[in-house]
Amino acid sequence: MSQLWIENGTFITMDEDVPVLTGHMVITDDKITYIGEAAPAPVQLQQDVTRLDGTKLAFLPGLINTHGHAAMTLLRGYSDDQNLQVWLEEKMWPMEGKYVDHDTRSGTSLAIVEMLKSGTTAFVDMYDRMDEVAQMVDSSGMRGVLTRGVIGLCPEEVQQAKLKEAIAFARDWNGKGDGRITTMISPHAPYTCPPDYIEKFVQAAHEYNLPMHTHMSESIAEVEQNVRDYGCRPVEHLDRLGVFTRPALVAHAVHLTEGEIELLAARGVAVSHNPISNLKLASGIARVPDLLRAGVTVALGTDSAASNNNLNLFEEIRMAALLHKGISGDPTAIPAIEALRMGTVYGARAIWQEQALGQLKVGMKADFIAIDTEKPHYYPKTDIISHLVYSGSGQDVKHVWVDGKQLVKNGQCTTLDEEKIRYEAQASFERLLKS
Amino acid sequence: MSQLWIENGTFITMDEDVPVLTGHMVITDDKITYIGEAAPAPVQLQQDVTRLDGTKLAFLPGLINTHGHAAMTLLRGYSDDQNLQVWLEEKMWPMEGKYVDHDTRSGTSLAIVEMLKSGTTAFVDMYDRMDEVAQMVDSSGMRGVLTRGVIGLCPEEVQQAKLKEAIAFARDWNGKGDGRITTMISPHAPYTCPPDYIEKFVQAAHEYNLPMHTHMSESIAEVEQNVRDYGCRPVEHLDRLGVFTRPALVAHAVHLTEGEIELLAARGVAVSHNPISNLKLASGIARVPDLLRAGVTVALGTDSAASNNNLNLFEEIRMAALLHKGISGDPTAIPAIEALRMGTVYGARAIWQEQALGQLKVGMKADFIAIDTEKPHYYPKTDIISHLVYSGSGQDVKHVWVDGKQLVKNGQCTTLDEEKIRYEAQASFERLLKS
Repeated sequence: MSQLWIENGTFITMDEDVPVLTGHMVITDDKITYIGEAAPAPVQLQQDVTRLDGTKLAFLPGLINTHGHAAMTLLRGYSDDQNLQVWLEEKMWPMEGKYVDHDTRSGTSLAIVEMLKSGTTAFVDMYDRMDEVAQMVDSSGMRGVLTRGVIGLCPEEVQQAKLKEAIAFARDWNGKGDGRITTMISPHAPYTCPPDYIEKFVQAAHEYNLPMHTHMSESIAEVEQNVRDYGCRPVEHLDRLGVFTRPALVAHAVHLTEGEIELLAARGVAVSHNPISNLKLASGIARVPDLLRAGVTVALGTDSAASNNNLNLFEEIRMAALLHKGISGDPTAIPAIEALRMGTVYGARAIWQEQALGQLKVGMKADFIAIDTEKPHYYPKTDIISHLVYSGSGQDVKHVWVDGKQLVKNGQCTTLDEEKIRYEAQASFERLLKS
Repeated sequence: MSQLWIENGTFITMDEDVPVLTGHMVITDDKITYIGEAAPAPVQLQQDVTRLDGTKLAFLPGLINTHGHAAMTLLRGYSDDQNLQVWLEEKMWPMEGKYVDHDTRSGTSLAIVEMLKSGTTAFVDMYDRMDEVAQMVDSSGMRGVLTRGVIGLCPEEVQQAKLKEAIAFARDWNGKGDGRITTMISPHAPYTCPPDYIEKFVQAAHEYNLPMHTHMSESIAEVEQNVRDYGCRPVEHLDRLGVFTRPALVAHAVHLTEGEIELLAARGVAVSHNPISNLKLASGIARVPDLLRAGVTVALGTDSAASNNNLNLFEEIRMAALLHKGISGDPTAIPAIEALRMGTVYGARAIWQEQALGQLKVGMKADFIAIDTEKPHYYPKTDIISHLVYSGSGQDVKHVWVDGKQLVKNGQCTTLDEEKIRYEAQASFERLLKS
């Protein structure tokens, strides 16, 4: 048993009843066992408790990145300011086609270092060679919701092999890493998988009791393709195929009608909003205030570093708070606290772990971060939630804990060799470029 | 004579001919005296030259923040997510009404610390009690383009006194601080100053040979007021009053017609684009690609920390590059290099100092910054300009020089006591809140 007592900190609990609290928090092993204004009673403390001075720090639940492709971090800055098709077909796909296991490992490691150091404690990852990804998540100590994303525009035997691989991965890794790893089943998108192939993923999700994750309605072109080929828009199409009979998380959901928003709400489908990637690729601007009003869980994702170009979830939180004000013309749209919920509580809900993650509350998992607020942009001390959302940065993160274990200490990773990881990412990129 | 030789650095020169250069730069006193791939020849170096290892650093021209109200940094986080009128009339104005000289000084000092540490070397400031602001700029070593912004909705004798004060300030401080301080003449906005009063500012600008700065077309409401009261939209209104017979910089310029864009281009008026403030206050989204296409100089500004809420110009650069892609539906709109120009070269042009600032070039002033690129979000080393714009942050700034003098060294201010400044800003805010 190990125990940590944080004294005199400012805790952004994200608990509706007491969103901000000045006081104390105790972590016993992997869980929060006390949080309150008063110091913990002696009976709540072990003799060998470690004490941490929380003054000058703000603590909040670890951020949850609900959509991304970590291994693509190797392609950061490799192609920007391009038409989507040129970017994808002439730049991304040829490079990704050259990946070997080692590249997936080095790209994912770089992503994990960047995410941890900027305060993300759990992330959704959809890619291939997922065994490599899962091993990196396991050894890093981070939390991952992992899935083999399958493109089904291929002969039937290849389809079968990919499906089998996706199922094997999901089955083998679900619950591993002391429960830090969970898995999903993912047809890549309604426009990259034939309908009968998507149905096989739905069957598998039922059989293995797994949730589903897919890209949906990212661009107008794919909505038009769905209407042309299947006679309906993507939400109805996926609904007909049974995807929403499973717990489901869809990424992007930029182009939606009123009816589609209602259907997502009725089916309890969660949306991963990726505002920066959507802007950068000029995909459009998701109707987030409408989705929230309809009761849809909207969480945040960075998408890959090839279309963002960083994995700093603080930027998605700020962008969600800013962008929808400007677009709607309503300066009260998505207030700071709501944007922060999208990065924490709603993120936990979107990955079906709201009982364990997203708030600082007794009984919850000890996934949390500490922000150094002794910086000019946190002054004067007015509203800490406003400062975190509108002024703060992932670079203000000083410490990070996942499952009660400290993974970042004074800005340095404790389980990962950052310098080696940077070096290997560089070597991988150079090899991909030359091969 | 002092001399600095930076060896083996990566220089983002912003010079059209060689935008990125790996090599050497020599600073002699306040100017760049050498930059090139080869090491400087012995004849270019003094015996007591200081050498700096430039490996692992990226050098670029200091960023130029072309619109703000530094003293309002005291009101960061004091009111967010509010309707503009509530924010302004119930929150900002009552607090600003309580300011005394000391508050202007403490707010401005906090702003200067934040700007310097995040890589801004020159800033435009429009406020009152400008003697306090100028003194802070002078003693900090930073570069400032300062102006007493005057609201003219007051009795004639008060108008006269304010105009006199604005002129005296502009005349007394222009060229001070070894030329680091320049001044402008500023009626606050066409909707807050009667037309005949604006004409008096134009006269003064001619008389003292000063440029003009004003807010313009920030919200639809003020455009409508101009049309209603003066029979034309703000650009034509200001043109008729002679404002554009002077070199002029207008802040915001969100709501423009084609004709207004053409007129701004024809008159050589520069625009300070403040994308984050415009989004946060839900003012709208400026037609930046159209302005650039028309040949208008578009630079960037943070506006005040009360509507941003930080003064980190890297965020405006990134927002300018992202937002206009999403809004236009064109992923090639405002490429990374163009966004970086808006924060450097175009900023210099907007403050009429393009001969001295905004590029790393022989003969230019030594206003430049060094970025620590040994961070995960700068890997792999692909395109440094892309990384700075899409992935970087003001918190990556390691060193800052203005006029050849190092003002930030290893992330710490050399001329300012940051801890004292934070403490005084907090004390000022608490006093304002209670008084």
